[in-house]
Amino acid sequence: MAKKQKFAKDSAVTMTEMVLPNDTNTLNNLMGGRLMHWMDIVSAIAAQKHSNRVVVTASVDNISFRKPIKLGNVVSLKAQVTRAFSSSMEVFIEVTAEDIPANKRYTCNSAFFTFVAVDQSGRPIDVPEVVPETEEEKEHYAGALRRRQLRLVLAKRMKPAEATELKALFENLEPIKED
Amino acid sequence: MAKKQKFAKDSAVTMTEMVLPNDTNTLNNLMGGRLMHWMDIVSAIAAQKHSNRVVVTASVDNISFRKPIKLGNVVSLKAQVTRAFSSSMEVFIEVTAEDIPANKRYTCNSAFFTFVAVDQSGRPIDVPEVVPETEEEKEHYAGALRRRQLRLVLAKRMKPAEATELKALFENLEPIKED
Amino acid sequence: MAKKQKFAKDSAVTMTEMVLPNDTNTLNNLMGGRLMHWMDIVSAIAAQKHSNRVVVTASVDNISFRKPIKLGNVVSLKAQVTRAFSSSMEVFIEVTAEDIPANKRYTCNSAFFTFVAVDQSGRPIDVPEVVPETEEEKEHYAGALRRRQLRLVLAKRMKPAEATELKALFENLEPIKED
Amino acid sequence: MAKKQKFAKDSAVTMTEMVLPNDTNTLNNLMGGRLMHWMDIVSAIAAQKHSNRVVVTASVDNISFRKPIKLGNVVSLKAQVTRAFSSSMEVFIEVTAEDIPANKRYTCNSAFFTFVAVDQSGRPIDVPEVVPETEEEKEHYAGALRRRQLRLVLAKRMKPAEATELKALFENLEPIKED
Amino acid sequence: MAKKQKFAKDSAVTMTEMVLPNDTNTLNNLMGGRLMHWMDIVSAIAAQKHSNRVVVTASVDNISFRKPIKLGNVVSLKAQVTRAFSSSMEVFIEVTAEDIPANKRYTCNSAFFTFVAVDQSGRPIDVPEVVPETEEEKEHYAGALRRRQLRLVLAKRMKPAEATELKALFENLEPIKED
Amino acid sequence: MAKKQKFAKDSAVTMTEMVLPNDTNTLNNLMGGRLMHWMDIVSAIAAQKHSNRVVVTASVDNISFRKPIKLGNVVSLKAQVTRAFSSSMEVFIEVTAEDIPANKRYTCNSAFFTFVAVDQSGRPIDVPEVVPETEEEKEHYAGALRRRQLRLVLAKRMKPAEATELKALFENLEPIKED
Repeated sequence: MAKKQKFAKDSAVTMTEMVLPNDTNTLNNLMGGRLMHWMDIVSAIAAQKHSNRVVVTASVDNISFRKPIKLGNVVSLKAQVTRAFSSSMEVFIEVTAEDIPANKRYTCNSAFFTFVAVDQSGRPIDVPEVVPETEEEKEHYAGALRRRQLRLVLAKRMKPAEATELKALFENLEPIKED
Repeated sequence: MAKKQKFAKDSAVTMTEMVLPNDTNTLNNLMGGRLMHWMDIVSAIAAQKHSNRVVVTASVDNISFRKPIKLGNVVSLKAQVTRAFSSSMEVFIEVTAEDIPANKRYTCNSAFFTFVAVDQSGRPIDVPEVVPETEEEKEHYAGALRRRQLRLVLAKRMKPAEATELKALFENLEPIKED
Repeated sequence: MAKKQKFAKDSAVTMTEMVLPNDTNTLNNLMGGRLMHWMDIVSAIAAQKHSNRVVVTASVDNISFRKPIKLGNVVSLKAQVTRAFSSSMEVFIEVTAEDIPANKRYTCNSAFFTFVAVDQSGRPIDVPEVVPETEEEKEHYAGALRRRQLRLVLAKRMKPAEATELKALFENLEPIKED
Repeated sequence: MAKKQKFAKDSAVTMTEMVLPNDTNTLNNLMGGRLMHWMDIVSAIAAQKHSNRVVVTASVDNISFRKPIKLGNVVSLKAQVTRAFSSSMEVFIEVTAEDIPANKRYTCNSAFFTFVAVDQSGRPIDVPEVVPETEEEKEHYAGALRRRQLRLVLAKRMKPAEATELKALFENLEPIKED
Repeated sequence: MAKKQKFAKDSAVTMTEMVLPNDTNTLNNLMGGRLMHWMDIVSAIAAQKHSNRVVVTASVDNISFRKPIKLGNVVSLKAQVTRAFSSSMEVFIEVTAEDIPANKRYTCNSAFFTFVAVDQSGRPIDVPEVVPETEEEKEHYAGALRRRQLRLVLAKRMKPAEATELKALFENLEPIKED
Repeated sequence: MAKKQKFAKDSAVTMTEMVLPNDTNTLNNLMGGRLMHWMDIVSAIAAQKHSNRVVVTASVDNISFRKPIKLGNVVSLKAQVTRAFSSSMEVFIEVTAEDIPANKRYTCNSAFFTFVAVDQSGRPIDVPEVVPETEEEKEHYAGALRRRQLRLVLAKRMKPAEATELKALFENLEPIKED
């Protein structure tokens, strides 16, 4: 029997937070850990929406923090599932911040979080497949395999030599375009 | 003139947290985002101790979350700077959790966070070099270069072909031993 | 010179929150005060986006809480400015909640909050006019005058006899349709 | 058999809070949502004391926020049940704030919250009648009927034409005196 | 010129808190540290009201925690200044808790906190004298000297032999009656 | 049969906290109540480690707060059990703070907290004996008896005349050396 399928966009979630004093360091910039906390919540909700299950964070890919986000700024986090593998789901999160009185909006960073759907006793359980529709969704879907290999290699659960998708990346002279 | 140097161990910090209800999901497990928030704070303190500066989170390497940490457990986070590059510092964090009434202690995960030391106007400023002493400190010091190349490649600030240290990794058939 | 105008939809904000243990009463239901706190934040952001100013809460219209929202549910709050009067803006907020594992989504309540735009010394300052486009936006725009009169009467800043729009409401035998 | 009765004053509760950084906006003024959160808690405790039951917030009447409350100010909230209708109770809350080092005390606002007493499975359950004693308690008791009609009309659960108490209000040329 | 005087009762403050999940240990009892946090806030407000100054906690006398306070209970804290010595003020706090649905109210504990009034640069500044009126206020006023000597001896700022008031206590065979 | 014994050092815990805006008063100094909250958590963990039981705070000895701790400072709390009496354990906590950018580290205060180990129904249960090893551990072990008598006298559960250990203290002309 064919496995259940769901559109990528059906898992889309938007979260909005205001940067409060306790979220900032002594330069009045949002602390990275607080932002990651929000990223984890919004992407967990996206993974829940895709799987209709309780989900647990399995891993977080490399995140870089480019611009400082200031006290009083409004942070928007958009999350959407990119691809599912049995019980695990990769979620793409994009963070933008806005200094509303100054009418300035800037992209902050993006990240991939991976979640596992579990049943009430905490055991992994299969989730629907993801159907990408837009160009961006299709690119994220295609890249998910390579990112999964990198995760397995970094977690020492795959030998580098077996990470064929990933290896191609490092034999290629062009800078990565997608994501 | 020789650049200032500091021992890796001089930046060591231990943080201890108890998992409270608001830190958990509906399965009573610590949420990944809350743990990353703590990891960011403890590693920022380690980077502050090494540099005697205000620091900002620059990036977080791939983290995998292996075991669920339960409500009421005590979480210990140990952080120490591994290596410095001009104004940036890589910090290694190791997380263990303990169910004290059950007398069970288990390793949860480890991660590398990178921080940049900044002056009061937020501009990057150079930090002392790190002097590793123990075997583990030396391994972390040596591996820092390779992790740095992976970060630059993933952030699209280095071409894969130039990441010579990193490339070696994927041409090598053995699973990664260190970290 | 014509006053600046902005579309109602340009102020739209979506906020998503997960109900955590500390947000609930002993029946594990979200406390009304916590929900109002979130409603205030999301509508303040909408008013900020319309005015590009710091805003202060001026008043909250009658809110009724219909259905209990449970621990672990995901709450979505959508806010949008309906109409502006000099320095004040009325914001409409709609709250829905979702028990994702049970795949149930339900409308919780809606409300009107009023904000005043202020300059850095806290003095009221004029804001752009609102241009409604959709049917719902036009209805909210039209009803804003009547709600404003009710607010002024309840705050004893207008005599009931002068609240001509409002009076019509109570001479009409039909139940209120809109909002 | 006569229904149980309790004095209005037996439900009186006083709550005191200090305005902390995270409670304020970028002008260092207490956010309205935070104040409503406190108002909900203090009035829920008053309703609990009257009914000796778990209570849930049913509705909040129009609130206006007159004066900004500053960071570091001490906020006093006094709540007392005004009248009961089967399982529901109306609570009056009065908020004052104090800048203690400046020796200034000012009235901020007042509000009416309505709660429903519920049993352990969340079903409404009857509560004692309220016996008002002082002049103010009697006025609040008398006005409760009119406010209840306004709530029902605004919630579209009563036709305006049937709200006889309320209608009188708008046919009267004098500004409202009480509350 | 005579020093300024204020009645003890003019500093009286009542604070009410509801015990939430994050305030409790795994037995669902309020943690002692959370209660001390509330005791510090309510007594700081009492000391502020007496002195009309910013105050800092100087010391806390021995506190014993007798009865567990349960999740969902309502805690009342009453604080009042007992006596002033130059720039320092002793505050008496009494804590009661209530399981409202069970209609049970019980005294939890009491304590003495000492605060120092400071000016804007943090330097100690003299405060008004306390005028006790009731029997209990007079007892607390009289005992304040003995408690102050005990504090100084324990802080090693007074030799036991000089603590004449205190010494009497230990030469007396009767158990302490007051407080 | 011989009772179980554990070394004092086996209960050692280190906790590290950063002072955030919500932890401070209007002079930007850490509030005493917040510090006591942290002291309670770290010492409860030490008592848990010694007993492998859930523990409840039984009492807190006199604490004095010597130096203000500033916003942004890093606070280290070290706790270790000093001695056990049946089901109760005394814990010594030492607090140091650090202004890292200024490279200043200062001792803040120390305290003794007492905990009782309880079973799942909240009844006291015996704990292992403490074996002190270092000079400091032995001094703390020896002094525990005297502090226990002072606690019992202050809690009116022992007559001053019976507190023989304690009495000696006040007959001695020398200032207290230990602790």
